[in-house]
Amino acid sequence: MTPEEARGLFPVLERFAYLNAGTFGPLARATVEAFEQELHADLRDGRFGKAYFERLLDLRAQARAALGGLVGAGAEHVALTGSTTDGCNIVVAGLDLGREDEVVTTTEEHFGLLGPLHASGARVVVVEPDAEAIVGAVGPRTKLLALSQALWTTGRVLPVCELREQTGVPVLVDGAQSVGAIPVDAAGLDFLTISGQKWLCGPDSTGGLVVADPERLRVSRPSYFSQRSYEPGGRFEPAEGAARFDPGWISSATLAALLAAISLRPQWAFERAAEQAARCRELLAPHVELLPGDATLVAFRAADPPAVVAALADAGVLVRELPGTGLVRASCGWWTNEDDLQRLAAALERTLC
Amino acid sequence: MTPEEARGLFPVLERFAYLNAGTFGPLARATVEAFEQELHADLRDGRFGKAYFERLLDLRAQARAALGGLVGAGAEHVALTGSTTDGCNIVVAGLDLGREDEVVTTTEEHFGLLGPLHASGARVVVVEPDAEAIVGAVGPRTKLLALSQALWTTGRVLPVCELREQTGVPVLVDGAQSVGAIPVDAAGLDFLTISGQKWLCGPDSTGGLVVADPERLRVSRPSYFSQRSYEPGGRFEPAEGAARFDPGWISSATLAALLAAISLRPQWAFERAAEQAARCRELLAPHVELLPGDATLVAFRAADPPAVVAALADAGVLVRELPGTGLVRASCGWWTNEDDLQRLAAALERTLC
Repeated sequence: MTPEEARGLFPVLERFAYLNAGTFGPLARATVEAFEQELHADLRDGRFGKAYFERLLDLRAQARAALGGLVGAGAEHVALTGSTTDGCNIVVAGLDLGREDEVVTTTEEHFGLLGPLHASGARVVVVEPDAEAIVGAVGPRTKLLALSQALWTTGRVLPVCELREQTGVPVLVDGAQSVGAIPVDAAGLDFLTISGQKWLCGPDSTGGLVVADPERLRVSRPSYFSQRSYEPGGRFEPAEGAARFDPGWISSATLAALLAAISLRPQWAFERAAEQAARCRELLAPHVELLPGDATLVAFRAADPPAVVAALADAGVLVRELPGTGLVRASCGWWTNEDDLQRLAAALERTLC
Repeated sequence: MTPEEARGLFPVLERFAYLNAGTFGPLARATVEAFEQELHADLRDGRFGKAYFERLLDLRAQARAALGGLVGAGAEHVALTGSTTDGCNIVVAGLDLGREDEVVTTTEEHFGLLGPLHASGARVVVVEPDAEAIVGAVGPRTKLLALSQALWTTGRVLPVCELREQTGVPVLVDGAQSVGAIPVDAAGLDFLTISGQKWLCGPDSTGGLVVADPERLRVSRPSYFSQRSYEPGGRFEPAEGAARFDPGWISSATLAALLAAISLRPQWAFERAAEQAARCRELLAPHVELLPGDATLVAFRAADPPAVVAALADAGVLVRELPGTGLVRASCGWWTNEDDLQRLAAALERTLC
């Protein structure tokens, strides 16, 4: 598959310069077809029976392996979640932090990480997303570093693995803007969240949580999948590996669609996405103030971000603004081409005139 | 719509005596069509834009109102969950129970309730599902009654509202086998879980949690929907009402399909389901030992439940067994007819010969 052939997978690209995978990736026709095939089977045959449930468990195993495979983790380390927020909540609740504990995070995290940190009851220490500041904030009470690998604001990449090594503190890495966008290796990371619907172009409400050592995290939110057997009072023998953290049922349609989406990813996905992001920066630099960034997000300042986003949308160029930051953000993927970027640059030039 | 017209909504009924709504309801053609319409829009237009997100929030509001409407609760008391397990976890975690606290539950609860109770850290007191035994188990440390309204084993109905009144202890009612099956009124109940995919015939991974007083339950698992605004450390001003407990994103397709499923319910749904369950008991009584039950589940003893379920499935009659109990369970809904029940009785008679 060449990059131009890859374009044909995604109907939305026929109409728009779709540059918002940081929120939702474009959907491929094959992904939706996989979804529909399962829906029709459920309609015709009922969501019933031994074969149905065995197939569902097999799809879960495949999804676990596919998500793990993207970050070099074995399936036994992967829980199937509904989102990165879901993963953050599972980790933070399972650590049983208290008021005496501290977690270190940055000023540029998403609420999907910050909300769970606050709910933990621990003291949340917030510093600039800078390696030195993060290390400097670690003290004897620090129980967790909670960081994005690629900041959702600008795509700047934090050296999460090095920070883990340097501080010796367990790290929860929010991979929302990294997994599928840039090469990611889960090795050395205690917890890593994955989004299915962003850079993997999967269906809504899909994702994964990679847990390096499942035995060392409490199952704080058990689902039927969490147990192998249980007693009358609910005490249970946990399922093997990270499957014990699975928060619940996922339809066969959703699982099949996620697998279809992941299977479409070309070998050259990372290389191409990086090229397109670099080209995007090159084209926008004459027109706007770009924020430093290393991943596939390109953020720039605007006097009135909502107005810029609306004007670009009118021109068929789909980007988003980041409320409260004064920033507009474009997401470049392996499906992005020169035409998309030229349309963005031209529309931006017109808008800013 | 007459009962026989209603049959035509559900393709699976053309092929099978489908008697397993206690696990998954049958899907209506219109429900799957609503799902597909949204999927196609996402494929064509992208999951993007102001109109897209506004519509999604509107669908969420509609789903909240529709679920609440089924149990006499206002939309502001309804959180949109992925399952009844999800709802139980939200409640139990939000109550911040400790080792000194006790919760009272019964010997016939699903792991979806028991797992969360165990995870709370409280002492779980397990008694027979009998009003007297439940009241007798309440002591000064009891912080919660956690009970099914209709037992998933037999469909026997517990007087949850009376138990709440009599004990003065807050009650978490697992409505998995009651809401949509029998008339349910949330009034007087502190917490009530609703399943979307069982008796409401909705898509997978849908449900609701009714919270009488949202201000008195901590948001233990925040999602983006939980907040109106937040500070850098994650502290947030909660969303209004029970929406603060919404655990996450739900696709527009899933929401539209849930709404379609609920809108298909006829006025006579409860009456018809009760009639069919009574008729089922009548037809099975000569052949098997029935367990007492008041709702739409009909459970009977079998020497080898998996073998009975398999033999019935071969005859196109879809029921389930309840592992570890020696019971087979048939679910009768408003879509069930005499032919389904005659097929069940005949196949059972043949199987037991």
